[in-house]
Amino acid sequence: MATTTAPAQGPAGARQAVERLPGSKIREVANAGMDLGDVLAFWFGEPDLPTPEFICRAAAEAMAAGHTFYTANRGLPELREALARYMSRLHGRAIGEERIVVTASGMAAVNLAQQVLAEAGDNVVVQGPIWPNLVATVALMGAEPRLVPLQFANQGWRLDLDRLFAACDARTRAIVVNSPSNPTGWVMRPEEQRAILDFARKRGIWIIADDVYVRLCYSRPVAPSFAELAEPDDRVVLINSFSKSWCMTGWRLGWLTLPPKLAPVVERTVEFHHSCAADFSQRAGIVAVEQGEPFVADLVARYRVARDLACERLAAMPRVRLHVPDGAFYVFFQVAGMTDSLYFCKRLVREARVGLAPGAAFGPAGEGFIRLCFASTLPRLDEGLARLARALQ
Amino acid sequence: MATTTAPAQGPAGARQAVERLPGSKIREVANAGMDLGDVLAFWFGEPDLPTPEFICRAAAEAMAAGHTFYTANRGLPELREALARYMSRLHGRAIGEERIVVTASGMAAVNLAQQVLAEAGDNVVVQGPIWPNLVATVALMGAEPRLVPLQFANQGWRLDLDRLFAACDARTRAIVVNSPSNPTGWVMRPEEQRAILDFARKRGIWIIADDVYVRLCYSRPVAPSFAELAEPDDRVVLINSFSKSWCMTGWRLGWLTLPPKLAPVVERTVEFHHSCAADFSQRAGIVAVEQGEPFVADLVARYRVARDLACERLAAMPRVRLHVPDGAFYVFFQVAGMTDSLYFCKRLVREARVGLAPGAAFGPAGEGFIRLCFASTLPRLDEGLARLARALQ
Repeated sequence: MATTTAPAQGPAGARQAVERLPGSKIREVANAGMDLGDVLAFWFGEPDLPTPEFICRAAAEAMAAGHTFYTANRGLPELREALARYMSRLHGRAIGEERIVVTASGMAAVNLAQQVLAEAGDNVVVQGPIWPNLVATVALMGAEPRLVPLQFANQGWRLDLDRLFAACDARTRAIVVNSPSNPTGWVMRPEEQRAILDFARKRGIWIIADDVYVRLCYSRPVAPSFAELAEPDDRVVLINSFSKSWCMTGWRLGWLTLPPKLAPVVERTVEFHHSCAADFSQRAGIVAVEQGEPFVADLVARYRVARDLACERLAAMPRVRLHVPDGAFYVFFQVAGMTDSLYFCKRLVREARVGLAPGAAFGPAGEGFIRLCFASTLPRLDEGLARLARALQ
Repeated sequence: MATTTAPAQGPAGARQAVERLPGSKIREVANAGMDLGDVLAFWFGEPDLPTPEFICRAAAEAMAAGHTFYTANRGLPELREALARYMSRLHGRAIGEERIVVTASGMAAVNLAQQVLAEAGDNVVVQGPIWPNLVATVALMGAEPRLVPLQFANQGWRLDLDRLFAACDARTRAIVVNSPSNPTGWVMRPEEQRAILDFARKRGIWIIADDVYVRLCYSRPVAPSFAELAEPDDRVVLINSFSKSWCMTGWRLGWLTLPPKLAPVVERTVEFHHSCAADFSQRAGIVAVEQGEPFVADLVARYRVARDLACERLAAMPRVRLHVPDGAFYVFFQVAGMTDSLYFCKRLVREARVGLAPGAAFGPAGEGFIRLCFASTLPRLDEGLARLARALQ
């Protein structure tokens, strides 16, 4: 019998680090509104459109043709080649298929990246306010997440690079950035990416860039990405997903772009994580990437109109302050005098029947703010904003 | 600047524990045969049939109906209810839907279970020879896997419970068992399960039971499962998958059955692992579970014939010793004088054009053995066995 005991467990018998993970505050608000029939919800980060028919058809045909078996851990070669061509075209830089690993969702890609890179004793510096899953995956591996908030400056959201770099030390394994940003809509500038890359190179720190909103940018055809700057061997992990660009949230399909040396390590770990993405979904992914450009262009045009409507109406409301987001499909607005966004959003759903995400869900730097997802039809958005305006009177 | 440095990295810049994970020896053999056109392969653990048409149709209809959005982390309520009814019927014991969490594959369920339960400082005792992924997921979390081998006794494969219990100490977080067993086909007896459950209860140790082959049993309609014995609050985690019973390997759909207290913890962790399984695949899963019994019965009947053919032919070969497997779809046979199964299987594929899995892939206790997956048509199996017989002359 060993003399030491296992690490302590939480009340459910699981690891303490896991039992202590906070539940989603967005979910908490959604639960508060669940039994109210007439809520207009803008709380989740999901396009309002189902997957386009040409993508669904490709999956149905693949199934009917018997493509229902395991695929290689890395994904189907045809999909990886299609993604390499797509990434190369999008970012104006040759990206080879040997750097692509397909995953069963962008979320799985993030979880996998942290399983491969982070462990107890490490810390990971994360730009906030941010999608909480990018923080929780660090904590899950027993590593320490360190949040460095964006500033809500007069000119827009701003990343203080000095603070970001000061948060890094000899135990920093990675810097996590998400641009276009959920929830703020902030888009990182190329010179900021250059500075982070230079710093990370010098210090041997990994960059994990969540690029899932890279197609949803309003001032340029594609948001700046580390994919444009990084050499193949740089310690850069790019996270991508089919969810937002092609309205495929319910498919669970994503991919990683990796240095050639790391790709086989990640490939091997995919085997132990979820083994592969669904065969027919990968075949539908090929069609999305190769034939989906008109769809993406329409989607961005639609979101731009919705964004402008939401921002115009919000800016006219008392107590509200915001920056017009340049990317993603959220407005993250400040409400003067609101100090408990969770309580505030629960009241909004009950009393005004409008469902929004509390800023506190995105880390401490998000308190005082509310997130609205404008991926919605205009009449629905219009009515939701009217309800909010009445509540803020 | 901190005075300590981060844990050391491997040559690719990933965690050492990850870079040291061994690659699959089955894959190594498969790679050796990849460019040879005429190999008959029985190396992977996959049914040879595509998914039945009624299941594919349900998925295609769900897609067309717009079921392409995120679902609850736990899975669709209708699927969880269908699974609770299925588990209750199968194991003769009421299992409530609040204990079911749907996952994007059985593999994801295993990875998730270890993320929730195991961490550095823990050990996890694993019955071997075993599917290597059940060991690697322990190592990935920084915990120590401890293998306790089944005995290749005269009467059949046998688990030495005293050895299993002796391998546990105060730092043991879980015992992992897989019955029906991949690769041995061993089926655990109810009295063995009772003894393990009693021991685990006394010591507060979790049981992680990989039940994915529970429907593929040849001496009874369903293999014995901890599901029959355990009380809801017992520390038992059951892993299940749609892959083997309904020929859905390429779908990535599985589920966990958990104590009611652990289920919400796992549900929260699913959010950070892969968020949910695909919406339309879950809807196809409902149809599989509710209408798939005739298909499962046919499948087992087919596999029984294939098993009998494989065992009869193998038993007649020189140097071969085996026990007829009572579950799963593998024969794990010993070859007298063979001490390097990896080398032997590579030679077999090159010289005899028959693809088999080396026993060493399933841990040290598997050395000296070879695994053949008999989920194949009879003429193909027949020809593969003829090639093997010639090679063993």
